[in-house]
Amino acid sequence: MEDNKAMVIFQPSGSRGLVPKGVTLIEASRLLGVDIEALCGEKKVCGKCIVRIEEGLFEKFGIESGMSHTSEWKEEENEFITAERKESGHRLGCVTKVEGDLLVFVPEESRAGKQVVSKAARDIHITHNPAVKVYYVEVNPPTFEEPTGDFERVCRGLEREFGVKDLTADIYTLRQLPNALREGNWSVTVSVWMDKEVIRFRPGKVEKAYGIAIDVGTTTVAGYFCDLTTMEVIDTVSLMNPQCKYGEDVMARITFHMMNEDGLKRMSDDIIEGLNWIIDQAIKNTYPPKKKKKKKKGEEVSDEWIEVPEEGKTYLRLTREDIEDITLGGNTAMHHILLQLDPEHVGLAPFPPVVHHSLDIKTRDLGININPSSYVFVLPIEAGFVGADNVGVLIAEEPYKSDENALIIDIGTNGELVLGNRHKLISSSCATGPALEGAQLSFGMRAAPGAIERIEIDPETHEVNYKVIGRDAWRKYSEAKDMKAKGICGSGILDVLAELYCAGIITKTGVFNMEQKSDRFRKNPDTKQPEFVLAWKEDSSIDRDIVITQKDIRQIQLAKGALYAGCILMLRRMGLDNPDCVKIAGAFGTHVDRQKALIMGLFPDCKIDMVQSVGNAAGDGCRAALLNVQKRVEANWCSRNVEYVELTVEGDFQKQFMEAMQLPHMTHEFPHLEEGPRIQGVKGSSKALSEGEFGK
Amino acid sequence: MEDNKAMVIFQPSGSRGLVPKGVTLIEASRLLGVDIEALCGEKKVCGKCIVRIEEGLFEKFGIESGMSHTSEWKEEENEFITAERKESGHRLGCVTKVEGDLLVFVPEESRAGKQVVSKAARDIHITHNPAVKVYYVEVNPPTFEEPTGDFERVCRGLEREFGVKDLTADIYTLRQLPNALREGNWSVTVSVWMDKEVIRFRPGKVEKAYGIAIDVGTTTVAGYFCDLTTMEVIDTVSLMNPQCKYGEDVMARITFHMMNEDGLKRMSDDIIEGLNWIIDQAIKNTYPPKKKKKKKKGEEVSDEWIEVPEEGKTYLRLTREDIEDITLGGNTAMHHILLQLDPEHVGLAPFPPVVHHSLDIKTRDLGININPSSYVFVLPIEAGFVGADNVGVLIAEEPYKSDENALIIDIGTNGELVLGNRHKLISSSCATGPALEGAQLSFGMRAAPGAIERIEIDPETHEVNYKVIGRDAWRKYSEAKDMKAKGICGSGILDVLAELYCAGIITKTGVFNMEQKSDRFRKNPDTKQPEFVLAWKEDSSIDRDIVITQKDIRQIQLAKGALYAGCILMLRRMGLDNPDCVKIAGAFGTHVDRQKALIMGLFPDCKIDMVQSVGNAAGDGCRAALLNVQKRVEANWCSRNVEYVELTVEGDFQKQFMEAMQLPHMTHEFPHLEEGPRIQGVKGSSKALSEGEFGK
Repeated sequence: MEDNKAMVIFQPSGSRGLVPKGVTLIEASRLLGVDIEALCGEKKVCGKCIVRIEEGLFEKFGIESGMSHTSEWKEEENEFITAERKESGHRLGCVTKVEGDLLVFVPEESRAGKQVVSKAARDIHITHNPAVKVYYVEVNPPTFEEPTGDFERVCRGLEREFGVKDLTADIYTLRQLPNALREGNWSVTVSVWMDKEVIRFRPGKVEKAYGIAIDVGTTTVAGYFCDLTTMEVIDTVSLMNPQCKYGEDVMARITFHMMNEDGLKRMSDDIIEGLNWIIDQAIKNTYPPKKKKKKKKGEEVSDEWIEVPEEGKTYLRLTREDIEDITLGGNTAMHHILLQLDPEHVGLAPFPPVVHHSLDIKTRDLGININPSSYVFVLPIEAGFVGADNVGVLIAEEPYKSDENALIIDIGTNGELVLGNRHKLISSSCATGPALEGAQLSFGMRAAPGAIERIEIDPETHEVNYKVIGRDAWRKYSEAKDMKAKGICGSGILDVLAELYCAGIITKTGVFNMEQKSDRFRKNPDTKQPEFVLAWKEDSSIDRDIVITQKDIRQIQLAKGALYAGCILMLRRMGLDNPDCVKIAGAFGTHVDRQKALIMGLFPDCKIDMVQSVGNAAGDGCRAALLNVQKRVEANWCSRNVEYVELTVEGDFQKQFMEAMQLPHMTHEFPHLEEGPRIQGVKGSSKALSEGEFGK
Repeated sequence: MEDNKAMVIFQPSGSRGLVPKGVTLIEASRLLGVDIEALCGEKKVCGKCIVRIEEGLFEKFGIESGMSHTSEWKEEENEFITAERKESGHRLGCVTKVEGDLLVFVPEESRAGKQVVSKAARDIHITHNPAVKVYYVEVNPPTFEEPTGDFERVCRGLEREFGVKDLTADIYTLRQLPNALREGNWSVTVSVWMDKEVIRFRPGKVEKAYGIAIDVGTTTVAGYFCDLTTMEVIDTVSLMNPQCKYGEDVMARITFHMMNEDGLKRMSDDIIEGLNWIIDQAIKNTYPPKKKKKKKKGEEVSDEWIEVPEEGKTYLRLTREDIEDITLGGNTAMHHILLQLDPEHVGLAPFPPVVHHSLDIKTRDLGININPSSYVFVLPIEAGFVGADNVGVLIAEEPYKSDENALIIDIGTNGELVLGNRHKLISSSCATGPALEGAQLSFGMRAAPGAIERIEIDPETHEVNYKVIGRDAWRKYSEAKDMKAKGICGSGILDVLAELYCAGIITKTGVFNMEQKSDRFRKNPDTKQPEFVLAWKEDSSIDRDIVITQKDIRQIQLAKGALYAGCILMLRRMGLDNPDCVKIAGAFGTHVDRQKALIMGLFPDCKIDMVQSVGNAAGDGCRAALLNVQKRVEANWCSRNVEYVELTVEGDFQKQFMEAMQLPHMTHEFPHLEEGPRIQGVKGSSKALSEGEFGK
């Protein structure tokens, strides 16, 4: 064995291989294709990557292993690993380095789960005017009298029949022309982009053209595969952003780029591979499914696959080249990373992006596997923290066409806010952080199987009823062993805060009510911090109680405080007390319970029926830009005319933020809450939170 | 050894290797990197690829070899290989297939020699207005009040300072921006193409930009490396077109494409590799030469290289990226093959090209290694046989700006003709074939060392005095053994015909005067055809007499007849008797003796001082397009407004052609020739040639 390499085996997957000595366990896991959670992007602050170094199994695997083959215990590890767990060999994967052969066990909670993703297309009104149009033209064959070349011959036909002129074509497209023209017996179908450039020649008459709009979220990538001629959404394909392994939030990924020379390229390659996977899935679904040919009597087992079409279903049988247009949206960091534009400065005040304007990039220049002469339309950017995803939301929701004052909230890892009407629009972002999506919480996790997504707490008994992703039945209708709970995800997080408050388990200021008697409430024996058990060890698949701690509650309060304060300051800028309507975009908006959101004080008061979830509006915007070129113009208009306001520089930002962390804010929809929660002793408490109380 | 492979050894190079059984010897030679002449592109008509299968050397090379390991003798081989040479193992490389292990000797005359190429840049007047311009701009760093992104920030500066607006940039260029801007402390040098698109960002202030204009000839590729800011030609780099191995003329290469599935790609890859070689040479010449470090006393031999700059010389030390613009010209076939546009239809009446208009193609899309966001400007095409090279000649010579009727002749493998003035221009092509360049003649060859390039024949003694490429001294001042003659090239061919005629060795109709007594005149013992010895075996490096045969003379007459008839018919179309001036472009024009050309009747009568060689005018046109965008506009105007006339469809084309083959045509400059040549018996002969006389 080489001296500078070490053998590492990961359990339970069994993946093994030589890695250079000195790499961290997280790096080793990447090299060997093992997915370990690294929500913070190896900044050593999330504690999600705890693994266990195994001993006493050397002989079984034929290698010498043990604790001595890792780097020394580090201060940072104390924060996440108790003395007891330290004793049993637990280490932090992003801190611990490989110094010799190792056998590493990755506990269930540290494994990066496959996310459950669902971003269906919404019905939105779009005018049909795609960037890629299809024209059919017949021409005369060349003669000695009229020996004009193929391209000029076809262009003349297009001008005569359709009035399109001054067309160009790139070299890839021109190469198709002579054979297409002759194969089609001097008739050809021409795909034209923006009435400027031919991007495809096909022999004879073809009527269809297809496109795909992809919303590149920090966590989820959603593709809407559309018929460009009918605007029909043929298929929706989603995928977890493959960059998640480099860090959960945008700052973690920017950090990964800054710490690794090839970090940007690796992250870009991964997302491009993801886009190509989405494209391939979309194409694959246009073919009938294949099944293994049945063995007939007396025949050998056949390896042949045969098509088994469903009755009544038409199959398009498309190829990658049949996708002729693509639009992409995403926040500024996702945009920059995908395009390999240095995202470093987007992460530093005053957060200038490399470019605002939309881009038209040849798909081949990005390695996107559709028709190679087609363009990727990349939506424009408003500001460093208000990206192309927000522009997508705007062109889908069109607040610039309305007299109403709309407050549009896109809650992802950052909260992006837009407020205004046809006369003026301002935008801002607030550092909600990833807490609302489950990161940074003791048992926070992505919306994957085992994640608690809904919670109800009985105000009298404090019994917890909950539902996990992957199981339809709630806890009270199930056996403990069937729940297999693993953690809590975004939609469960707002539930838990509202329910804890309404049940009187926490006070207005977010601290645990120490007087409660529930056996679920306790002090953690290690940290001495109060915590509340959401699911008992018997309900879990990780053999531990799933709890929410005082620190977790603080994280959620910080997030919701940032969001609320942002909204208040923006309203003030516009001279408004309340918005006329609130639109919540993003997966969060789809799952959140409007009533609980108002209880929590997530955003300013508004009539509950004027609060609307607009789903993946960023994706809808990409789709609108795919099907209507005018939307591309509007997008660029938005990117330069929506005024970005930096809220953190407002004089009383800190005061607003502090106030906004309290629970609940008064709402006209829930006047009973003015009475405060139902536990004596905290009722009516209105003590303002001091800054000190929120110090770490 | 594998059953379907055979070991082939080529001598004298010694190249050896396994090749698939069934390939021809030419294919085997390519696989093993041996250059065998294949002027006709394996159409089995040039007979240049004769090789000898060696026997009796099996043991020496440890393989079993012999005649039986080749395919059977073919009918086509009889035409080029005498019975005697057949007996000694000679075979035609493009016909004979490998069927077992072989030892193959490639005779000197079948080896593809490295051509001597010289295409220096001429002084032409060009207005300075390059497509790529360099701007320097300083901007303020972003602040919270003004957080605009990098690109928009720089564009605003460019608009303010230079008035250029609505700029775009491709993704490769954008990637440079954030770091260039910060490295230059918020100042940046911006290269802008056509005042439309940024193609490069460099930190701080840089004043220079460079470009290269490349004329892609069928035989020679010439690159002019220019300073875009001063228009100075820094260097000229030439190269034999690497496609020559697939065939000498355009039809041979089109055939190679049609016969080989990957033929087009292979030929394109080869020329692109050639262009990159030219670029690398140009770059390399901007660095001081390196010499091996001298060994000092007591030191080990050092492998280190050190720079040895010449005194008083400035070195630019450029990189590939410093070349920011490139223009390409070439005939239609070269154009199509380079761009991988199917050239098949260009070879078939009515010869429609795929595209006429000039093209702007990203260099990276063609694999050309200069600044990757730069564009290749490909000159436009007039017609199938009047290509971008001719457009180059036109924009260099500008007949469309003159009142004079200019006849512009570009003699390459095809003759391309343009006639006219500012009011009207017509173009045509004539199938001169490659004879004037040396192909199709018994001892024709490229302008490589050993090629006879000048000939004088004493009218009395018929002694031949000649000069070969690679030796300054003429034959009569040299020893026989020093001449090392190998064949005859283009410039020698016109000489030989004029001299043979003036010395009375051939008649007006081009047939040998049978009454002459020179010992150089004889009947070939094999073919029984008359021939004239230009250089004796002792003078040659190929151990054979170098002769010109009756068939050779016919080939030259066919070529010159086609050219002359073309000129005459074009004059008639324009209602002219004679042109006001004749401009001969191409390497041929540089070498040809104007007087001998008029003697031969290569083109219509014109005052000798109005006959001008304009050198590589096609290359000059490429250079003009590089340095002045207006020339690109003129080029496209030419390509659509110069009327192409197909001469072969003229009613009396055949008659004109027949007449034009005669020697000499009367010229006012050489009235003595009206008396006919100096040999009695043929003097004054004016018998018209019958068509039959020119049958094969």
